[in-house]
Amino acid sequence: MRLILAAGTTETALVDGISAAGATPELMAHTPPGDAELLVYGEPVRSPVTPISPTGCVTPAAVTRAVREVRAFPVTTIDAGLAAPTAAPTVTLDAKPGADIRAERAVPDADGLFERARSFGASLPDDAITIGETIPGGTTTALGVLTALGERVGVSSSLPANPMERKRSIVRDGLQASGIEAGECENAPLAAIEAVGDPVQATVAGVAAGALETGIDVTLAGGTQQLAIAAVLRHAGVTDPLTVATTSFIAADRGEDIERAADRFDCELTVTDPGFDERDHVTMNRYCAGEVKEGVAMGGALSLVPAGELAAVRDRFATICDRLGVDEFLDEAGPESPPDPGVSSEGR
Amino acid sequence: MRLILAAGTTETALVDGISAAGATPELMAHTPPGDAELLVYGEPVRSPVTPISPTGCVTPAAVTRAVREVRAFPVTTIDAGLAAPTAAPTVTLDAKPGADIRAERAVPDADGLFERARSFGASLPDDAITIGETIPGGTTTALGVLTALGERVGVSSSLPANPMERKRSIVRDGLQASGIEAGECENAPLAAIEAVGDPVQATVAGVAAGALETGIDVTLAGGTQQLAIAAVLRHAGVTDPLTVATTSFIAADRGEDIERAADRFDCELTVTDPGFDERDHVTMNRYCAGEVKEGVAMGGALSLVPAGELAAVRDRFATICDRLGVDEFLDEAGPESPPDPGVSSEGR
Repeated sequence: MRLILAAGTTETALVDGISAAGATPELMAHTPPGDAELLVYGEPVRSPVTPISPTGCVTPAAVTRAVREVRAFPVTTIDAGLAAPTAAPTVTLDAKPGADIRAERAVPDADGLFERARSFGASLPDDAITIGETIPGGTTTALGVLTALGERVGVSSSLPANPMERKRSIVRDGLQASGIEAGECENAPLAAIEAVGDPVQATVAGVAAGALETGIDVTLAGGTQQLAIAAVLRHAGVTDPLTVATTSFIAADRGEDIERAADRFDCELTVTDPGFDERDHVTMNRYCAGEVKEGVAMGGALSLVPAGELAAVRDRFATICDRLGVDEFLDEAGPESPPDPGVSSEGR
Repeated sequence: MRLILAAGTTETALVDGISAAGATPELMAHTPPGDAELLVYGEPVRSPVTPISPTGCVTPAAVTRAVREVRAFPVTTIDAGLAAPTAAPTVTLDAKPGADIRAERAVPDADGLFERARSFGASLPDDAITIGETIPGGTTTALGVLTALGERVGVSSSLPANPMERKRSIVRDGLQASGIEAGECENAPLAAIEAVGDPVQATVAGVAAGALETGIDVTLAGGTQQLAIAAVLRHAGVTDPLTVATTSFIAADRGEDIERAADRFDCELTVTDPGFDERDHVTMNRYCAGEVKEGVAMGGALSLVPAGELAAVRDRFATICDRLGVDEFLDEAGPESPPDPGVSSEGR
């Protein structure tokens, strides 16, 4: 099994208050490079900061890294439109950062990027791949693509309180700027990505399509963003089996929604609970309270761990948090605005 | 321990008959990308061919990969001036392919590239790194830099018969085109690389210098090319301990030369014999006959293997050769022109 991380950006993330994948909007461009470095080296190398949320909660890359330290597996990062340098080695597919979806075209080269990613995926020698993503703002572009495809599936948020109305309004503006209506891109998923998606979607969908063609098992690691990619694949006519692997934090937040969506897109759904509630650890407590929830293939990585080894993963995660010095940013009392049980959340 | 591979090109390799790092001059640009893919994926992915010598002998990347399959270690490839695409993930330092050393400047950006590589090396979190290279034509640029530094050290060749006179003549032309004399770059090693070196040298020397500054142990994996880089580091005033790890094939060819050079540049020298003479295997026989000899960190990787596990490395290497289908290119009778014991050889 090879874990593939598609790391990219969309200017949509700069809209105030839609993403927690970075302490501030200025630092958000450094989140995907930092996530990739954390996964490869165990700490930031060229990135100026360890990616954290505005409330100080560490990136899920630290969980995925903890899994990797317990169960070694190869990691390959793809530059799916990075906007800042990284010391992590990346596969080059000539991806560009995505524009704000309220521009006329969010991913002008969606077709070409999908094709190059497909060709890369088809040539991989592996039996199985697990593909995750890191892209701040990715749940808004996921909602964009789902809406353009005519799929009524809600998305989650990395913020404790999901700014769903805001996302819907951005997507409405995005569709209008592209001159398309909700549902108009049915069976034309690359047109949906071009109009209101992001370069990570074109990359992950392309790699998955290519790998499936060659008989490689594909797991999409993530929550609603990966369900949007499953929708892209199904609308592209891909009928092979697909698994979506996510965390219990997504399931706790949107269990019925993701089950219905997995069913609708004919995906096996795997949910893994890292057992963070068994420890009294400030960062683990925050994950249990609904911050961050998923991202950087966290759920997919956890699905590789036998239940008996999850305690070892928690130990490694605590050690990594110590090493990164991230627990100190967190106030034991929790964030100022506690998660609203009536709304949802996830990922980036 | 992290194995770092600097993969790049110099147009010097296109001079007829100076490098065996590719079946034909046209295919040579694909050797570094193919080597990186072999190391990361175990087979070519985006590269059109498995790198072989003109006589059909497989790249030493296959040996390094065999070691990796026996003793897992992380591999990080740096794009040190690639001239063809690769599916291997690469660290980006904005390196450009090197010009023919008979141009006025072989590596116009040697200073900047060294600085960026130094900064990368200094930020690595590892305790120890082993740095290898893949660059067709690299022994000629090694001779160029050594000559510009005033160091009288011979270089080897990936060809069975080392075209030493040809290399000397190219270096003479290179120095003349740059307007410098032999020895003129003493204590100014980046000027030597700029005039008659290659981008891989600036990259490896930079990473090594940065890593040493931070207290990371550094092993230069290779033969005379790495000794040239040791010379660069010493002329740059770096006094930390350095190890050069190479293969018994280099030692068999130029044992006294490399011992003297290691001594001169204050390097510990490690020589590892993969025991290919214990098997009757067509490709192993060719290595024993003096083809290829070293490259892609082969000697450094072998130095990580306890003697008792070398048989397992040979088994993996045979399996990899089968998988790549490379043995079939080889004529059991050996190359047309057998190695000339009076001359020398190595690497790329």
